[in-house]
Amino acid sequence: MKLNIAILPGDGIGPEVTNQAIKALKAIASEFNHNFKFTTADVGAVAIDKHNDALPEKTLELCKKSDAILFGAIGDPKYDNDPSAKVRPEQGLLKLRKELGLYANIRPVKAYKTLLDKSPLKKHIIQGTDISIYRELTGGIYFGEKHTSEDGNYASDLCGYSREEIERIAHLAFVAAEHRSHKVTLVDKANVLETSRLWRKVVKEVAEQYPDVTLDFLFVDNAAMQMILNPKQFDVILTENMFGDIISDEASVIGGSIGLLASASVGDKYAMFEPIHGSYPQAADKGIANPIASILSAAMLLSHFELHNEAELIRLAVEKSLKLNITTPDINSVVNTVTTSNVGDFIEDFI
Amino acid sequence: MKLNIAILPGDGIGPEVTNQAIKALKAIASEFNHNFKFTTADVGAVAIDKHNDALPEKTLELCKKSDAILFGAIGDPKYDNDPSAKVRPEQGLLKLRKELGLYANIRPVKAYKTLLDKSPLKKHIIQGTDISIYRELTGGIYFGEKHTSEDGNYASDLCGYSREEIERIAHLAFVAAEHRSHKVTLVDKANVLETSRLWRKVVKEVAEQYPDVTLDFLFVDNAAMQMILNPKQFDVILTENMFGDIISDEASVIGGSIGLLASASVGDKYAMFEPIHGSYPQAADKGIANPIASILSAAMLLSHFELHNEAELIRLAVEKSLKLNITTPDINSVVNTVTTSNVGDFIEDFI
Ligand SMILES: CC(C)[C@H](C(=O)O)[C@@H](O)C(=O)O
Ligand SMILES: CC(C)[C@H](C(=O)O)[C@@H](O)C(=O)O
Repeated sequence: MKLNIAILPGDGIGPEVTNQAIKALKAIASEFNHNFKFTTADVGAVAIDKHNDALPEKTLELCKKSDAILFGAIGDPKYDNDPSAKVRPEQGLLKLRKELGLYANIRPVKAYKTLLDKSPLKKHIIQGTDISIYRELTGGIYFGEKHTSEDGNYASDLCGYSREEIERIAHLAFVAAEHRSHKVTLVDKANVLETSRLWRKVVKEVAEQYPDVTLDFLFVDNAAMQMILNPKQFDVILTENMFGDIISDEASVIGGSIGLLASASVGDKYAMFEPIHGSYPQAADKGIANPIASILSAAMLLSHFELHNEAELIRLAVEKSLKLNITTPDINSVVNTVTTSNVGDFIEDFI
Repeated sequence: MKLNIAILPGDGIGPEVTNQAIKALKAIASEFNHNFKFTTADVGAVAIDKHNDALPEKTLELCKKSDAILFGAIGDPKYDNDPSAKVRPEQGLLKLRKELGLYANIRPVKAYKTLLDKSPLKKHIIQGTDISIYRELTGGIYFGEKHTSEDGNYASDLCGYSREEIERIAHLAFVAAEHRSHKVTLVDKANVLETSRLWRKVVKEVAEQYPDVTLDFLFVDNAAMQMILNPKQFDVILTENMFGDIISDEASVIGGSIGLLASASVGDKYAMFEPIHGSYPQAADKGIANPIASILSAAMLLSHFELHNEAELIRLAVEKSLKLNITTPDINSVVNTVTTSNVGDFIEDFI
């Protein structure tokens, strides 16, 4: 297969981990005789520094003519503590999601056998956990109208949702559930929010088209609790943008390290694959960043193009590296000298 | 001391647990020679059923002329799944908070020694955790303008904050930190939300008046993760309404049961005390509801009036009941026959 893959390494540890994912993809290409072409472009703080724009037009164009995008990470603390900054790295990511119509962010959460002991949660709580989180990604309070009063003493963000925005991701979630354990849990705050009540109404209607999938509801506060008390109760979780952001980062503790979690952001035309961890600037260029989330994002990319054997091989390589303890310090309590690129090299070799 | 206490038992397990708290307060009154007068009023689903109003005028009046309010729980599933219901039990609670100006919800989170094994988290993670969460309670998306389009296919909720709303709770949080470990963590989403950027700006300014308190910032998604990875890093957490709702329910897993967590909702004129758990209708009238959160809410009520010895005695009684395993099934894995009122009786006797 021929694939044009746009590489957007971004900030902090983004470039390092993305490089390992590229190594894995190149190994796959040579092993399976595919033709993968990689083209790199700037996004985030790095793009602001170079072009004064978190998402330069050139980058967006590249994404639009590529078959898929591999994204690193975004964010730089120098912008976080400056409430008056007009240009922010995150705008690059948000604009990318919006412009490419990537309305569904899909995050698998699994408890790896070899890492059961690494989690802050007890083994019997997490063992067997297998969740797929469907987070709406281009609506809600992230993209609603923002306002600050002239005198700077009042600010607001609008959270809005339309039936269509809810329907399209709900269908994806129900289809996924049909191939999994046939259960969708809608996480909302319908006892307080008007938007949540719309979600409940629309999702109930969509559910009627999937009679073999059970739908249940959980208030987001309760969901945040249940995720820790009993994560095994979940199969597919469906939720709006902000709740999905919170719940899926929280769920990352189940796997033992956020450095393991990959995600796919998909729409009707484009697809982007990225680790769920951030740019983690404190760790940049130290060789300690865990590349597995990025490598598993590459596997999700391959699955997206129905290259299932290829994706499976990457996953096998990852599990092998975990078993052999060829892992970065975040999940490696014994050896302390395995670097980001050591992990990448091992996975490349294995493939 | 003479105190007029309004009792609002509410729905589900609310009445049962509140009764145990009243028993504890009565025991305190007779032991310390105080004069506590209790007057009960309806709120929530129960009030809708009786008066077609989740917060009848009479209830509000009672609260306004009382010295403090002891609240049970609110909510009934028959309203949750009906997106078109015009009257909802939660409106009673929200209106109460707004009308009484209870802008700060304070939730202590502690890992009880005797319960360390009950938590889904590993012992070494939670041991020594001592957090006080300051959640803004009368602003944000809970109270912003709500809108549904004529055709019902679009809905929105507005999240707004003013400088004053942020300042007043920020001061409470910093004062609390001065008496604790001198650290405030602001939880927000300043990389996306305009309101969060206002929070960051205002809280930074307030912090300057408390030079011996350290202020740091955490994005809410990261905070949801850190709460599980390393809860000991937190001292005082300050956050807006919705994030506080999610983070504090999540934090309840640290104590081993949400049935243990009390909260105080305070404003400039009034104060209300309530367990953080909900109405848990499945458990109602079975004698299995844990009354400790309500009893500890009563202790917070006493502390509020500087009755520190009295509050301490209640806390001692609670710790004793935990140590002796005189607890409801949620935290009692051995005996299965201790009921809600057994726990209340024990604590009453102890006092
Ligand atoms: C960087 C930030 C804007 C982003 C988000 O909140 O969506 C990140 O946390 C994520 O989850 O991908
Ligand atoms: C019942 C509900 C409206 C309420 C809230 O979200 O504030 C509850 O969850 C709480 O935290 O007190």
